[in-house]
Amino acid sequence: MTRDFAITLTTIRDAAKRIRGHVVRTPVVQSLVVDKTLGTEIFFKCENQQHVGAFKSRGACNAVFCLTEDEAAAGVIAHSSGNHAAALARAAQLRGIAAHIVMPHDSATVKIDAVRGYGVEPRFCEPDSDSRQAAADKVIAATGATFIHPFNDERVIAGQGTAALELLEEVPDLDAVIVPVGGGGLLSGTLVAAKSLNPNIKVFAAEPAWADDAFRSLQSGIIESPVRHDTIADGLRTCLGTLTFPIVRELVDEILLINEEEIGAATLAMMFQAKVVAEPSGAVPLAAVMRNKERFSGQRIGIVVSGGNLDPSTLQRLIASGDSN
Amino acid sequence: MTRDFAITLTTIRDAAKRIRGHVVRTPVVQSLVVDKTLGTEIFFKCENQQHVGAFKSRGACNAVFCLTEDEAAAGVIAHSSGNHAAALARAAQLRGIAAHIVMPHDSATVKIDAVRGYGVEPRFCEPDSDSRQAAADKVIAATGATFIHPFNDERVIAGQGTAALELLEEVPDLDAVIVPVGGGGLLSGTLVAAKSLNPNIKVFAAEPAWADDAFRSLQSGIIESPVRHDTIADGLRTCLGTLTFPIVRELVDEILLINEEEIGAATLAMMFQAKVVAEPSGAVPLAAVMRNKERFSGQRIGIVVSGGNLDPSTLQRLIASGDSN
Repeated sequence: MTRDFAITLTTIRDAAKRIRGHVVRTPVVQSLVVDKTLGTEIFFKCENQQHVGAFKSRGACNAVFCLTEDEAAAGVIAHSSGNHAAALARAAQLRGIAAHIVMPHDSATVKIDAVRGYGVEPRFCEPDSDSRQAAADKVIAATGATFIHPFNDERVIAGQGTAALELLEEVPDLDAVIVPVGGGGLLSGTLVAAKSLNPNIKVFAAEPAWADDAFRSLQSGIIESPVRHDTIADGLRTCLGTLTFPIVRELVDEILLINEEEIGAATLAMMFQAKVVAEPSGAVPLAAVMRNKERFSGQRIGIVVSGGNLDPSTLQRLIASGDSN
Repeated sequence: MTRDFAITLTTIRDAAKRIRGHVVRTPVVQSLVVDKTLGTEIFFKCENQQHVGAFKSRGACNAVFCLTEDEAAAGVIAHSSGNHAAALARAAQLRGIAAHIVMPHDSATVKIDAVRGYGVEPRFCEPDSDSRQAAADKVIAATGATFIHPFNDERVIAGQGTAALELLEEVPDLDAVIVPVGGGGLLSGTLVAAKSLNPNIKVFAAEPAWADDAFRSLQSGIIESPVRHDTIADGLRTCLGTLTFPIVRELVDEILLINEEEIGAATLAMMFQAKVVAEPSGAVPLAAVMRNKERFSGQRIGIVVSGGNLDPSTLQRLIASGDSN
């Protein structure tokens, strides 16, 4: 099933061995309340319990521990305003090497503090992609640090695939797996892992309708960009990469679009029914099941809850909007 | 260590065998963020992921599956406005016997619905203890149903002890275990399990200062009643029972009192730092560590997160009060 991609079940298994001890083997939990409501059997793979609160730790650790001694000595660099920044800072600290993190100066304080928590002082830049790249290029020229992309990197994708590997080790007989799609790192790793282990399994991506670039990319055959950047699922605002797009196009069964109200309702259902703290991006797969209840009825479904870095004010707004029951 | 109580490590191990398959072996999770902040290593036993969202499922299942065939045929009865009601209804449904649940008519809709979700129509009574008992006595006289107390019952206490048993199987080398105390069922079961497995382990109870009856009971030597009933930790408003008090008095290392603000802050820390959905009662043990940071510094601590039935409006109020960071 997995054709000739550089990411294979073997590279994912190698990643799992490489990062063991550096990442959490996260729990898989069920909720009778959710299952009764939806007529399904859902297994939540809780990457909200992963280090830095997101699956990003897997890919970052694999990338950092893949480096040769010489490469490692020169350090790593990323530009990110999100979980990848903290995940890379943490991975570098584990290996005892330098990490350079370029962040837009308007990044959330909690994200900046997370990077600082791993001993890295971010380098701030203007919040546009040219400034970010220029700042990163300057560091690379000065230090020779290895650039680690948040998703368009084979080592990162293989690392992200280890979540599905663990999920399917624990619950092998799933009918389907659903993960959120942003840049497609988690989705690509999941597709290769799941389809290699079980060619009959369905793998769906869940995507906000307000960031439907992956959905449109499958239709047009080229990598499309998001047209708006304001979905509450802020981890999913990016477009696919040149490495992830071919894997997604070849292997994904379908991309399911979800609206903002559904994402909000799913975030609250995750919390108050399943008792799982999910950021909106991590609740998008459950939203897909809630929206397509008939279709998934009677199925055993694995969901990767991608992260749990939920902002208190976002949660407060969602509760106030009255979707909590 | 466990003297001559009717609840022993053996009865707890028997309970664990009896309820296996009927309850969730809940995950144990850690949070680097919490550990870094507090200078501890905390292991959260996630009973928020238990059926009906609370450890109460353990005791209720053990009690119901302890019944003889004859006893079972006559059904079970409880009066409760809380998690025990749903837990008993569920356990009875599993065994295929009748459950009679007496609830005050002003019980929370969500609790009433939970009981109905297990196929039991509650019998409503006035919200005072005489009315509750009278309603229960009437049912018992008519049906011969077995009354299952939420905590003052050896079968229930042994069932609650299985949470600590699992925790210590997974993390044997703990310095201390902290659980919340209300009626003392969870505390008594935890005390017997933990002290039997490791006589050197410390077991602390955490109790709201606004429901400090257990604390005062240890001082006076008799079972004291709460003087107020408005702590946010609504699962802990009851006094100890005649079975739980002697166990607590004999074995507990100390009861740590916590104020309301600390409980609120701990509920938010559970959610936004540890990513664990805890009701305020379930956050009281973390509050105890936060309050006594120096004392617990450097220790490996097990915490039983007793439940996750957090009310959205309570959470909203806590976030608004600004304790989220």
